[in-house]
Amino acid sequence: MNIVIIGGVAAGLKAAAKARRVDPAARITVVEKGKMISYGACGLPYYVAGDVQDINQLMTTPAGALRNQAFFKNVKDIDVLTETLATGIDRAAKEVTVKDLTSGEERKLPYDKLVIATGAVPVKPPLPGIELANVHQLWHPDDAKAVRAGLERGKFTNAVIIGAGLVGLEMAEALKLWEVNVTVVEMQNQMFPAFLDEEIAGSVAKYARQQGLTILTGEKVEKFTGDGAVEAVVTDKRTIPADLVILSIGVRPNVELAKSAGLAIGPTGAIAVNENLLTSDPDIYAGGDCVENTHIISGEKIFTPMGSTANKHGRIIGDNLGGGDEKFRGVLGTVVVKVMDMNVGKTGLTERDAKRLGYDYVTAMVGGHDRPHYMPGAKIITVKLIVEAKSGRILGAQAIGEGEVAKRIDIVATAITLGGTVNDLFDIDVAYAPPYNSPIDNVAVAALAVLNKLAGRLKGISSLTAKGKIDAGKTVFLDVRTPDECKQQGRLVCPSVKYIPLGQLRSRLAELNKDDEIVAFCKISLRGYEAALILEGEEFKNVQVMEGGINAWPFECEK
Amino acid sequence: MNIVIIGGVAAGLKAAAKARRVDPAARITVVEKGKMISYGACGLPYYVAGDVQDINQLMTTPAGALRNQAFFKNVKDIDVLTETLATGIDRAAKEVTVKDLTSGEERKLPYDKLVIATGAVPVKPPLPGIELANVHQLWHPDDAKAVRAGLERGKFTNAVIIGAGLVGLEMAEALKLWEVNVTVVEMQNQMFPAFLDEEIAGSVAKYARQQGLTILTGEKVEKFTGDGAVEAVVTDKRTIPADLVILSIGVRPNVELAKSAGLAIGPTGAIAVNENLLTSDPDIYAGGDCVENTHIISGEKIFTPMGSTANKHGRIIGDNLGGGDEKFRGVLGTVVVKVMDMNVGKTGLTERDAKRLGYDYVTAMVGGHDRPHYMPGAKIITVKLIVEAKSGRILGAQAIGEGEVAKRIDIVATAITLGGTVNDLFDIDVAYAPPYNSPIDNVAVAALAVLNKLAGRLKGISSLTAKGKIDAGKTVFLDVRTPDECKQQGRLVCPSVKYIPLGQLRSRLAELNKDDEIVAFCKISLRGYEAALILEGEEFKNVQVMEGGINAWPFECEK
Repeated sequence: MNIVIIGGVAAGLKAAAKARRVDPAARITVVEKGKMISYGACGLPYYVAGDVQDINQLMTTPAGALRNQAFFKNVKDIDVLTETLATGIDRAAKEVTVKDLTSGEERKLPYDKLVIATGAVPVKPPLPGIELANVHQLWHPDDAKAVRAGLERGKFTNAVIIGAGLVGLEMAEALKLWEVNVTVVEMQNQMFPAFLDEEIAGSVAKYARQQGLTILTGEKVEKFTGDGAVEAVVTDKRTIPADLVILSIGVRPNVELAKSAGLAIGPTGAIAVNENLLTSDPDIYAGGDCVENTHIISGEKIFTPMGSTANKHGRIIGDNLGGGDEKFRGVLGTVVVKVMDMNVGKTGLTERDAKRLGYDYVTAMVGGHDRPHYMPGAKIITVKLIVEAKSGRILGAQAIGEGEVAKRIDIVATAITLGGTVNDLFDIDVAYAPPYNSPIDNVAVAALAVLNKLAGRLKGISSLTAKGKIDAGKTVFLDVRTPDECKQQGRLVCPSVKYIPLGQLRSRLAELNKDDEIVAFCKISLRGYEAALILEGEEFKNVQVMEGGINAWPFECEK
Repeated sequence: MNIVIIGGVAAGLKAAAKARRVDPAARITVVEKGKMISYGACGLPYYVAGDVQDINQLMTTPAGALRNQAFFKNVKDIDVLTETLATGIDRAAKEVTVKDLTSGEERKLPYDKLVIATGAVPVKPPLPGIELANVHQLWHPDDAKAVRAGLERGKFTNAVIIGAGLVGLEMAEALKLWEVNVTVVEMQNQMFPAFLDEEIAGSVAKYARQQGLTILTGEKVEKFTGDGAVEAVVTDKRTIPADLVILSIGVRPNVELAKSAGLAIGPTGAIAVNENLLTSDPDIYAGGDCVENTHIISGEKIFTPMGSTANKHGRIIGDNLGGGDEKFRGVLGTVVVKVMDMNVGKTGLTERDAKRLGYDYVTAMVGGHDRPHYMPGAKIITVKLIVEAKSGRILGAQAIGEGEVAKRIDIVATAITLGGTVNDLFDIDVAYAPPYNSPIDNVAVAALAVLNKLAGRLKGISSLTAKGKIDAGKTVFLDVRTPDECKQQGRLVCPSVKYIPLGQLRSRLAELNKDDEIVAFCKISLRGYEAALILEGEEFKNVQVMEGGINAWPFECEK
């Protein structure tokens, strides 16, 4: 059995390693156009930050062995050809043409089974000045090395990051650690437009600004100027001084080879594969960032390049190369990203997705400490759930905050994968002890909020809806926090706020009008909810709760 | 509607609060025999440790309001009678007799619906000397205050903790922070006998000893000696000097009131309730630490008092008091506990449980970093999965290590709750980014190990089985670590270890005998597994892998 694999980073080498485990006798050849193989590309921002000292650490095993050609040969009996470009696939002859990039020599590699793992390439917009020095993408170790070397020499003072996505914000944090001024320019109206709902993105942006990043959304870069090296970024709104530019506006699948071989390309522009990760040719598999995936909830084809998915693909392809019938179930578009000390995560559908796909859904957003508030290190996180109204099926979740977020996203991702409902999220016997969480975990609290909304007990509105009501000027906002909290956490900028701490509400009802539209809130709106229940118990007609409270308020507060 | 609730800590007050939300008009009275209500009992060890400065923090809301009688009256319109003991229930008359413990007065409270949330009481063995001063249980805030006050005055030098369970080890950590010498005495042969398998418990004990705790297992306390105050603990093996003793050998449900009212008591000795948390009387609910629960997997009745379960009970009872039909699904016996810097968690069945219940199961135990090894703060955790062999259904998991453990336990708990299989654990699109985890999360790696075992590709043995083979002296142990690692991590105490680093194995096969029984391992046994595959590919007949590697080896190593 002759196996050829094109691409030697994540999916390709994982497939090779697994194929070897399944079939000790196969001949396995991996072709990689670059010099380096099997590197942890997701670690590059942390190398730039200085968290990772040596870039070779991204290419070693946990035991310290460099995952180079000799390693793959000695340990796994896999031949890796580096600096070797696959230039064509002859499907009839079952041959791949490869070119040695150092000697220029071409030759043909015969295959019984072929794997395409050509990855993705960063999008490079055709903007004037993009060829200037110090305009970098952050995709290959060489980019990271160049940026880090410049930082070590104190070369950069003002960095502009184009694109407020994952790599963009990871790089923003990395550069900030080097005390560089960082401006992030995003064409869309919000941060993380690919995976966060607008009000959550607003909270993240507010936090990022508080941490000293300049976040410019709804702003389009027009050109880069400078004499040899970049000196400024010109947008449709201003000119920003910049001696370093990071382009992180996304990636596209690298499908040229597959396309020219006549393999089917899917609606997303990535290679189409079936559940077994077979392409339209039964002897050619494809996996990693060059293929499209199926969304587990919606069934849509989506392009979500992710290191974790690439590794799963590799494992499944490796098994199937050895005669297995392993299937890839699909993705939830789960992401998590660290933005300074804030954790930001999402799984499944956003509310925007749910709306676009026509779901009848309900959402709830709740804040709360990630462990009992009395424990040292307890931090607030905000969890938003999106649930199908009729069935209760969980559609998605987002969570942000300085507290533990990834665990909550993973609980929901697990529940969604198994077809769970919002009731299930309350039922789960999660691990409880004060260093880890509160007796009712944040996910369960969010589930209860959804259940209360479905039962008609909680009428919640988002911060954005609340802002609209403030602007319209017809609504009374009821702030039930204590005066100390208001001072510390800031006040809503709104002429019609009434301040009545929750403990006094029952005795001060006369100060409110039963026919007014009232929006109650507190720091996280748990007391806001209590307040609404008290008012409803007293026959107030139109009481709502501002979900997430002042803690998730994306706009400026008065102090 | 007249609702009376007996017990004002977790389940009772949660039920009261939820009942109020559902029914603004009900009359709700809570009866509590102690002075304090609604305190976070699970936080007591952290108060003793000094992590929590003021014990009142355990009784405040996150916003700082003390959850006292006035709070429940003003905010929730709930009457709480403290220092009031319920002495009898007249089910025919639907009345509870209560006694004011300060005045001694008795009176009767009529009820339409009654809730029993009388909690549990710590087991106090009838040992000589147990009445000596400084012999404490750690169940009530008063115990914690006494211990902390003694610590602050530098009163304690040698503490002995009886029982290596949750509270015992939390207290061991707390006392160690005060630089007290701590000895933990456990009657069973292992730490955490209620929820860890023996080899995992052995790893925890090894770690605890390395951190300076003295852990004595299989040792029975016979008496306490001293003149007024405790001076020593006498076991069946030795006399241990002690000026502080913490009794933490478990708790039993407080069922006297329920029993004398003729309510059904279950096989565990706790109050029997149905899914709605109704007792054998249709007007009396019970919840929290005084009731028994149903195990979601086995269907067995079990007694697992846990703050998280009590809060869930309270919420469900509150809903049902208002006419709801909420059901409690049951528990998985999930636990998590911090032992110094090690996190220890379990959900579902242990291997011991699975054996006792007659399941046909397979287990796998794997070690690995909790995030990419190149990230700062990456730590190794060990995950053990127990899976039903035929169906692949997940039965349970245990995880330990200085890295992130609770998340992995919660992923498995979620999957079990939804009937997930070991395949599902690989499929889940968990949140991936280097600050949080590796591209293939530890849970997925453990799932793959199980799948490899089910497919006959991995023949794993536990550290205990390996120890047996070392003692029998007929097996070759193959250590494929590098010499540097062996020096750093220590060597197996075994005369028949062969040292061949993995990268040299293919070229040094002649040093091994194809007919020998060989057990391969490394630090975490990932390379041990690679080594086994190489040997099997070369037609070695009898190769096994020591699961978890030297990292999870519970016995001493040679350095």
